[in-house]
Amino acid sequence: MSSAVPKKFSGFAPESQETWEHPKLVQYDPKPLLANDITIKVKACGVCGSDCHTLSGNWGPYRRPDLVVGHEIVGEVIEVGPDVTEHKLGDIVAIGAQSESCLDCNRCKSNNEQYCHKFITGTYNAPSPRHDNYITQGGYASHFRVHQHFAVPVPKNLDYEAAAPLLCGGLTVYSPIVRNLNYDLSDKVVGIIGIGGLGAMALQISHALGAKKVYAFSRSDKKKDDALKLGADELIATSKKGWSEEHLDEFDLILNCASSGKDANFNPFLRVLKLEGKFVTVSAPPLSESLSLFPFSLLGNQATVRGSAIGSIKEAKELLKLYADKGLKPWIERVPISEEGVHEVVTRCYKSDVRYRFVLTDFDKLFG
Amino acid sequence: MSSAVPKKFSGFAPESQETWEHPKLVQYDPKPLLANDITIKVKACGVCGSDCHTLSGNWGPYRRPDLVVGHEIVGEVIEVGPDVTEHKLGDIVAIGAQSESCLDCNRCKSNNEQYCHKFITGTYNAPSPRHDNYITQGGYASHFRVHQHFAVPVPKNLDYEAAAPLLCGGLTVYSPIVRNLNYDLSDKVVGIIGIGGLGAMALQISHALGAKKVYAFSRSDKKKDDALKLGADELIATSKKGWSEEHLDEFDLILNCASSGKDANFNPFLRVLKLEGKFVTVSAPPLSESLSLFPFSLLGNQATVRGSAIGSIKEAKELLKLYADKGLKPWIERVPISEEGVHEVVTRCYKSDVRYRFVLTDFDKLFG
Repeated sequence: MSSAVPKKFSGFAPESQETWEHPKLVQYDPKPLLANDITIKVKACGVCGSDCHTLSGNWGPYRRPDLVVGHEIVGEVIEVGPDVTEHKLGDIVAIGAQSESCLDCNRCKSNNEQYCHKFITGTYNAPSPRHDNYITQGGYASHFRVHQHFAVPVPKNLDYEAAAPLLCGGLTVYSPIVRNLNYDLSDKVVGIIGIGGLGAMALQISHALGAKKVYAFSRSDKKKDDALKLGADELIATSKKGWSEEHLDEFDLILNCASSGKDANFNPFLRVLKLEGKFVTVSAPPLSESLSLFPFSLLGNQATVRGSAIGSIKEAKELLKLYADKGLKPWIERVPISEEGVHEVVTRCYKSDVRYRFVLTDFDKLFG
Repeated sequence: MSSAVPKKFSGFAPESQETWEHPKLVQYDPKPLLANDITIKVKACGVCGSDCHTLSGNWGPYRRPDLVVGHEIVGEVIEVGPDVTEHKLGDIVAIGAQSESCLDCNRCKSNNEQYCHKFITGTYNAPSPRHDNYITQGGYASHFRVHQHFAVPVPKNLDYEAAAPLLCGGLTVYSPIVRNLNYDLSDKVVGIIGIGGLGAMALQISHALGAKKVYAFSRSDKKKDDALKLGADELIATSKKGWSEEHLDEFDLILNCASSGKDANFNPFLRVLKLEGKFVTVSAPPLSESLSLFPFSLLGNQATVRGSAIGSIKEAKELLKLYADKGLKPWIERVPISEEGVHEVVTRCYKSDVRYRFVLTDFDKLFG
C-alpha cells in the first residue's frame, strides 16, 4: 500500500448534471494542506441520500464541474500539517458531512460546530473559506484532506467499513435523540418514521440508549421483521386507518427519517405526542418540497416541531463509542468502488433500494 | 339591576350561517345548573377572531342553529351551585375560551386543563359532556353559566371591560411566553409577529414581564407608533428586503400572532432565531390553511416550531394580576351591545379593522 500523497487526487464525478448517474474517474487538485489539515487515504465511503440529491440536482446546480461526492468517509492518515495534534500517521479516522467551521464562535465553542454562523463547510460542493473558497471534493475518491477537528478516530473494535454510515446518517439521528431527550431515554417512548438509511440506525441507537419503548412507523408491515431486529419493540403501519387513536398521549419523541415529505401527512404524528412532546425532522428532501402542517395539530398538545442538522464532533465520537461498546453495526451493503459500483449505488440509493446503507469498499484495489 | 336568573337566556345569534354578519336577539334554554356551576349576569364581552371564524363558517358548520358566540366574558355571579367554593354572589368574574374539562386527568391536575385529553369544552359551539352534550352558548348574551373552575376573579383595581380580552386573546399569548421562557425574560429577546388583537397584548405582556428586548414584526412601518407605545423597543418592517440578515442569531422566542398564515413566508423568522430558539404559533386560521415550512429552515438553527392553545386557569389568574399590578389595560374599542353593535364588531373584526380589540359593553342597558 502506497502512502505517498499524490499531487492530484482521483475520484468519481459525472461529466455533467445530465449524466449524474454515470460518474467517471477524474483527477483534480486537492485543496492546499494548511497547518491544521490532515490527508487521508480513503478506505471506505458510505453512500448518503445527500449524494444523490446533490448529483441529481435536487439541491441545485454543482459548484464545480468535476464534482466528487461522498461524506461518510473512513481512511488512514498519511499526512499531517504542522499544527495537527489530534491524529498521527497510520490512524484510522472518519469524516462526516462537515469539513470546516470557524471553531471560534460561541456555537463552535459549545459543541455546536454544525450550527456555526460564520461558515459550515460541507464535505463536498461547498466553498472552503480557509482554502481561498476552494470547492470541496468528497470521498468517492482516492484521498481526502480535512481540518483535524473534523476527523474522528475510529475505535479499533469497530468494523471500519460498517462504521462509515455512522458519520453522516448515524450522527444525523443520534444528535436529535440525545439532545431532545437529554441523554436519558429510560422512561421515554420514541417513534422512528421511515425504515431506511437513517431510520434503521435510529432504531439501533434508540434501543442501544435504553429507550423504554421504540416504535417504528412504516406505511405497511413489510419491514416489520427488519424493524424488530434493528431494535424496535413494535411496528405501527400508518396505512392502517385509525392507528393514531390507539396511541394518543404516548410519544415523547418522534423522529422523522423519511426521505421525502411529499404527500406525507404528519398531523397524526403530532396528535400522538405527549404534552410538550417533540416531532423532530432530520430529512433533507429536494428543495422543492415543503413541510406542511395543519396549525390546529400544533395547538392540541403544545407540540414541538424541530429540525436538526447532522451533529457535533463530540456527538460523533460518542456515537462511534456506543456502537463499539455495544458490538453494533449499521446494516450495510458493501460494493467495491469502480465505475460500475458507483453507478449502482447512486442509482439504487436514489430509489431507496438498499438494505439499509451502501458502503463503497476496496479502495486499495482500485487506487493502489 | 335585576339579579334573578331567567328561565331562558337571551343572546345574539345569526338566523343561518349565510346571514352570519347579522346576529339577532334570540332566547334559548341554558344548560342545567350542576353542583359546581355558577351563573353570571354578563357585563362585558370581548370580540375574538374565533367568533368571526366560527360565525362565518371558516371552522365548519355550527353545532346548533341559534349559536351565540363570545368567549371573553366578564360578569357578576348571581347564582352558585351547592358545591361552589371559589366564588360567591356579587363577585365579578371572567371566563375565557374554555368552559369545561375533566379536571381529573394528569393534564388537568398539572395546570394543563387546556390540553385535557378527555374533553376540552369550548365556551360556545361545543358539546358539554357534563350537561348531556348540551351545545354551549357564549357571551354575546344576557347570562352565562359555567363550571366554577373556569371562572377567574377579576381584581378590583382592573377596568373590567378592558380586562375582558385578556381571557382569550391575552391568555393565548401569555401562556406561550411564560412557558417557553420559563418566566424569566430578563435576558431574552422576543419578537411578536402581527400587531393585531393578540399581538398588541403580546407586546404589552413581553414588556411588562421585563424582556431584554421586544421587537414587533409588521409588514410595514404603519403601526410603529402604536407598537412602541404598546411596549415594543423596535419595529421590524418585514416588507423591507434583507431584514433577516441584520438580525441573525438574535431571537429567543418569536410568537406568531398573525391572524392568517396564507401566503406568509415564515422561513426568515426561523433564520433569525438563536440556536434552539423557538417559533411559536398561536394563530388559529381557517381550517383550509396550513403552515408551510421549508425543511432546511428548520435545520439551520435547530429551530423549534411549536403551537400553543389558550392557557391554563392558573395562568389566567397570573395574567389578570400582572395587568392589575402594572396598571395596564389592553387597547380596546368599546361598543354597546345591540343588534347594530354586534353587526359592527363581527364585520369589522373579520377585516381586522379594530384598534386592537372590541369589547361589547352596556349589557345592563339592553338586558336590564
